[in-house]
Amino acid sequence: MAFWNLSTLQLEKFRPGISSKAEIGNNLIMVCMEIEAEKEDIGHSHKFDQCGIILNGKIEMYIGEERKILTSDESYFIPSGVKHGWKTFDNPVKILDISAKES
Amino acid sequence: MAFWNLSTLQLEKFRPGISSKAEIGNNLIMVCMEIEAEKEDIGHSHKFDQCGIILNGKIEMYIGEERKILTSDESYFIPSGVKHGWKTFDNPVKILDISAKES
Repeated sequence: MAFWNLSTLQLEKFRPGISSKAEIGNNLIMVCMEIEAEKEDIGHSHKFDQCGIILNGKIEMYIGEERKILTSDESYFIPSGVKHGWKTFDNPVKILDISAKES
Repeated sequence: MAFWNLSTLQLEKFRPGISSKAEIGNNLIMVCMEIEAEKEDIGHSHKFDQCGIILNGKIEMYIGEERKILTSDESYFIPSGVKHGWKTFDNPVKILDISAKES
């Protein structure tokens, strides 16, 4: 579907602690996801760029040496190869995340 | 810079009617842009996927056969090769737009 209303979009369980809906194209993967409270990814890296925007809630994210608590209307850009991770606090966070498809 | 606050991000004139700031990676181009009122792109297509989210304001967009007036918290996904266009109304619109880099 070409258009999503992110406020009402139905998400599905993706893995423990994360619900999501994805649109997969030839070059891009766009994912609306909700991450539950008190979850963490201590860090990983991959060979493709990734970026996104916080829709609501709060998440701490680090990208290389930069670390920030992000809330709605804040965006992130993770260059390929740079280690990054995140953690949520006492409420869920909703994000629109875009990755280049690994080629 | 890894993180942007989209409410306060400084945009620069990109072309008539559009101010923007771009982050360009190896695979992705992320652009925050503001399009002035009463502008139109009647349509074009390209070989890479493109997607984004409306931050504030209102824009009419079509992607192939689908046409919709989008406002904040709505997203779009333009598959590679599909003709798309847009027009703004009597106020500017602010968007976060992501494209796969043409390879």
